[in-house]
Amino acid sequence: MVTTKRYHLAERPDGVPDDDTFDLREVELGEPGPGEVLLDIQYLSVDPYMRGRMRAGESYAEPWEVGQPLEGGAVAEVVEEYGTQFEPGDTVVGNMVWAEQHVANAAELQSVSVGDLPASTALGVLGMPGRTAYFGTREVLEPRAGDTVVVSAAAGAVGSVVGQLAKKQGATVIGFAGSDEKCKIVEAEFGFDACLNYKATDDYVEALSEAAPAGVDGYFDNVGGPITDAVFTQLNVDAHVAVCGQIALYNEEEVPTGPRKLGKLIETRARVQGLLVGDYATRFEKAASDLAEWVGTGELAYCETVTEGLENAPDAFVGLFEGENIGKQVVKVE
Amino acid sequence: MVTTKRYHLAERPDGVPDDDTFDLREVELGEPGPGEVLLDIQYLSVDPYMRGRMRAGESYAEPWEVGQPLEGGAVAEVVEEYGTQFEPGDTVVGNMVWAEQHVANAAELQSVSVGDLPASTALGVLGMPGRTAYFGTREVLEPRAGDTVVVSAAAGAVGSVVGQLAKKQGATVIGFAGSDEKCKIVEAEFGFDACLNYKATDDYVEALSEAAPAGVDGYFDNVGGPITDAVFTQLNVDAHVAVCGQIALYNEEEVPTGPRKLGKLIETRARVQGLLVGDYATRFEKAASDLAEWVGTGELAYCETVTEGLENAPDAFVGLFEGENIGKQVVKVE
Repeated sequence: MVTTKRYHLAERPDGVPDDDTFDLREVELGEPGPGEVLLDIQYLSVDPYMRGRMRAGESYAEPWEVGQPLEGGAVAEVVEEYGTQFEPGDTVVGNMVWAEQHVANAAELQSVSVGDLPASTALGVLGMPGRTAYFGTREVLEPRAGDTVVVSAAAGAVGSVVGQLAKKQGATVIGFAGSDEKCKIVEAEFGFDACLNYKATDDYVEALSEAAPAGVDGYFDNVGGPITDAVFTQLNVDAHVAVCGQIALYNEEEVPTGPRKLGKLIETRARVQGLLVGDYATRFEKAASDLAEWVGTGELAYCETVTEGLENAPDAFVGLFEGENIGKQVVKVE
Repeated sequence: MVTTKRYHLAERPDGVPDDDTFDLREVELGEPGPGEVLLDIQYLSVDPYMRGRMRAGESYAEPWEVGQPLEGGAVAEVVEEYGTQFEPGDTVVGNMVWAEQHVANAAELQSVSVGDLPASTALGVLGMPGRTAYFGTREVLEPRAGDTVVVSAAAGAVGSVVGQLAKKQGATVIGFAGSDEKCKIVEAEFGFDACLNYKATDDYVEALSEAAPAGVDGYFDNVGGPITDAVFTQLNVDAHVAVCGQIALYNEEEVPTGPRKLGKLIETRARVQGLLVGDYATRFEKAASDLAEWVGTGELAYCETVTEGLENAPDAFVGLFEGENIGKQVVKVE
């Protein structure tokens, strides 16, 4: 019998999640049954979309029930297996829980193949955020050579990759990020043409019209809210807007309001489209292979923010909404 | 020397245009010069987009200057010509002014070819609104067989045609209109599957979820505002939204606000796109020919609301925002 620490949803948060939201329990796990594996979790992913799962109402992801374990993407080492394709010692990635150990159905796990890169990249640049950026850029943003593309949350796990992929297509890329330190990394490491620190900017429209004097042809939106409002005012004719996240709004319990934008779409004939990475599942291998190649050649840079210890997973999660991470936020469990 | 009555922009309206907005002048016209024609205007089109031209700020159409004549699509008879392709007695359509007579550059006019239909149809079902519906449906809404499509301003010049074209594609079509009389026409004449009288409905979301229990796959938006807010709550995965007009907002002088919608686009991966008919100019003849054929075979029904007398053009225009017209609103000048 194995004992593990595991986070459960204590209650649904009202606004920003806090200590009352998370319940760290000591639980006993059963032995793995046929087709199952016992896992030592190494890295746990915390992601903005999880805020939606804490809400009872409809979201694009199924809501978590109060009292149930919190789920999430994770990288783990196989400790025991019962008639599966894995061996003890294998490193696997898949949907797990916020815990140190976990028993999972082996059919829902994949072997991690990240070459010489850290296993945590299977949760970041080579994992869900990398794939989101890959398909969001390729299938929805569709940057054209010469476009001016704006990326919000430019220092984040998705935004940092989107900007680099848009540059590869010949676009000029402007980022929004939340500190001078982040903006420096966005420009120096991720190669954006410019990055605006929105926390040091009073007038986003003015700042943007200076940084992008020819207007905005593409916008990859990870945040929603006032930054997005400002970008919409600068859209050019035939602009493409990819809506990937609305992190600025995820802790709002009332329906958020803001300036109506549809009239601008008539003026510009702009196209606005939402995206969820799961729609592209048939091509995940191709994406991972391309992304790994570009990381290998140095064409694609990435960052990770690693928080140590399962007990700090709630802080790492809440920190996403404060912009405390640069690049992919993971929790190193042990 | 010819004398004509002509409306000029007296001042920019603040909110709903009123008597102070319009200045009816008696003006003398010069003789037509080389390449010009003198026209007797028969029918004048008043359209919601003209409200945008009364505003100094940016819109998709160039603003009118205070003191200048109001422009608009019109049908006219050629009275005199000076070395043009037209003969006296020809009926022409093009951009003219709110007047009884007008001198125009013949190169910017087209012969009216509406077969057995009234010449006014060159301003309606066979003119700009018909073409807007044609390309908006075909290129932006893209209804698929089995879709549930919602059309706002369903009794209007554009909406009435959109609904019929979506039906042709095999969609179930639900309209929103502003009176029981209109809804009756929308269902009986235009063949919509249902029409909701929004002025007799307290809860648009509830009414829509009853009329469209399987959700909304396509939305052709002519109005914006609360009706559009309600439709967005009902969008299905992969929905298409065509944004053609926002008449509910055109008299607002402040930036209108409302519920933020981008999060819904992530959930549904819906595509929202604005449209302006001028983008499809290379195919206007094909559109007019298709539309005329469908009217001829009885596949496409249309309505017109005719206001008599140039002096009533301002009332006809303001009436658009009150929903006083059914189908295309024209002014019969003489």
